[in-house]
Amino acid sequence: MKVIVIGATGNIGHVVATTLQARGHDVISASRSGYPAVDISDPDSIAAFFEQVGKNADAVVVTAGAVPFKPFTELTRDDYLTALTSKTLSQVDVASQALKYLNDGGSITLTSGVIARAPIATAAAAALANGAIESFVITAAAESPRGIRINAVSPDVLENSPQFHATFAGHRPVSDEEIGRAYTLAVEGVGTGQTITV
Amino acid sequence: MKVIVIGATGNIGHVVATTLQARGHDVISASRSGYPAVDISDPDSIAAFFEQVGKNADAVVVTAGAVPFKPFTELTRDDYLTALTSKTLSQVDVASQALKYLNDGGSITLTSGVIARAPIATAAAAALANGAIESFVITAAAESPRGIRINAVSPDVLENSPQFHATFAGHRPVSDEEIGRAYTLAVEGVGTGQTITV
Ligand SMILES: NC(=O)c1ccc[n+]([C@@H]2O[C@H](COP(=O)([O-])OP(=O)(O)OC[C@H]3O[C@@H](n4cnc5c(N)ncnc54)[C@H](OP(=O)(O)O)[C@@H]3O)[C@@H](O)[C@H]2O)c1
Ligand SMILES: NC(=O)c1ccc[n+]([C@@H]2O[C@H](COP(=O)([O-])OP(=O)(O)OC[C@H]3O[C@@H](n4cnc5c(N)ncnc54)[C@H](OP(=O)(O)O)[C@@H]3O)[C@@H](O)[C@H]2O)c1
Repeated sequence: MKVIVIGATGNIGHVVATTLQARGHDVISASRSGYPAVDISDPDSIAAFFEQVGKNADAVVVTAGAVPFKPFTELTRDDYLTALTSKTLSQVDVASQALKYLNDGGSITLTSGVIARAPIATAAAAALANGAIESFVITAAAESPRGIRINAVSPDVLENSPQFHATFAGHRPVSDEEIGRAYTLAVEGVGTGQTITV
Repeated sequence: MKVIVIGATGNIGHVVATTLQARGHDVISASRSGYPAVDISDPDSIAAFFEQVGKNADAVVVTAGAVPFKPFTELTRDDYLTALTSKTLSQVDVASQALKYLNDGGSITLTSGVIARAPIATAAAAALANGAIESFVITAAAESPRGIRINAVSPDVLENSPQFHATFAGHRPVSDEEIGRAYTLAVEGVGTGQTITV
């Protein structure tokens, strides 16, 4: 399959890209600093990117999107808006635009996170952004044209993100192998409208 | 208890306000057209409203927030942004500002909807907005000061919203009595960080 991974230089994206490559897929690794570059916070940049590399793709995976972390009483309206535009709307934009380019039966995989379902200090804006994505895929999948599947992968904190381990105390950090399997399931499986928790 | 209901002239808000009044609470019924008026899409309006009526309140209930309904392939970035600002951010703003006014042990109740968890045609933007709220309350509740509780009520389609019944075919419409009970549970119960489905 031809698979586009957006966020491929990051912790998760790197694992996804190398896992899918090792499984024999033709992987296009993208980010703001890759070539061709894409900034998913800018709908025009997404359009130009897909015009260049999106044709005949079988899968798009997004593992990008940052959110502000602050105590609930300190989060401002701008923080929430940043979370929603940078993590949620950007991924929705990729999904919406990908519909025009993906092959029949292709797939779109977005990334949320455990904060959608577990209380984590300083994570109210992240929760907003993640929960939105997990509900979005349910209805978007049901309405997708041409058999295109849409799922989210919702990881717990990564083993290889030790700077977050204190905030996620008591959570079981997720290995690269588990991350690779979750996104493989989304890309090679048949599920749609699912949130794959890992 | 002194309870502020924002959206009190609407289908759900009217039921909530009359139910809580019948249970002996002192209810302040608010909306853009009430007195004092509040427009929850405008943070300054929320601030002025709470400054006028928010002191010594025990509960704030929000039953306002509209979202665009269109097929997934027709929803635009502006539609998603409208859904997120009009239904999600506005309720988060009310919650954040209410923290300064509510009595110790008070409560905040937001409104999401079944679209957070069920596929409904034309509802991808609504799903985004609802899912965000249901995840938000989990972490916001855990970080709320002074024992203030935060919950969401997530109703299925209402009996008294027949214009939506075709879109929600096969769903069991919710009676006013059930709506009244769900919000009563949120206001008078002890739960926090919960989504009360009805
Ligand atoms: N790390 C964890 O423990 C963890 C756990 C659960 C969920 N998550 C979620 O998973 C996602 C990825 O996390 P991560 O730790 O892998 O992040 P990361 O290491 O910071 O990587 C982010 C990736 O996205 C790219 N990127 C950032 N902004 C972009 C934009 N506007 N357009 C295109 N590409 C962009 C970055 O490359 P450029 O800078 O070159 O653009 C990079 O490749 C985040 O949404 C995060 O919330 C992370
Ligand atoms: N109806 C259903 O079947 C159903 C089912 C599940 C969930 N829901 C959700 O429940 C919420 C309420 O639904 P509803 O059917 O009761 O709506 P509705 O009948 O349209 O009532 C909306 C209420 O909110 C007020 N309002 C609207 N915008 C406002 C703003 N910016 N600031 C302050 N007040 C505002 C309106 O009064 P003014 O115009 O005077 O401001 C009115 O009191 C919506 O978020 C909806 O998605 C509805």
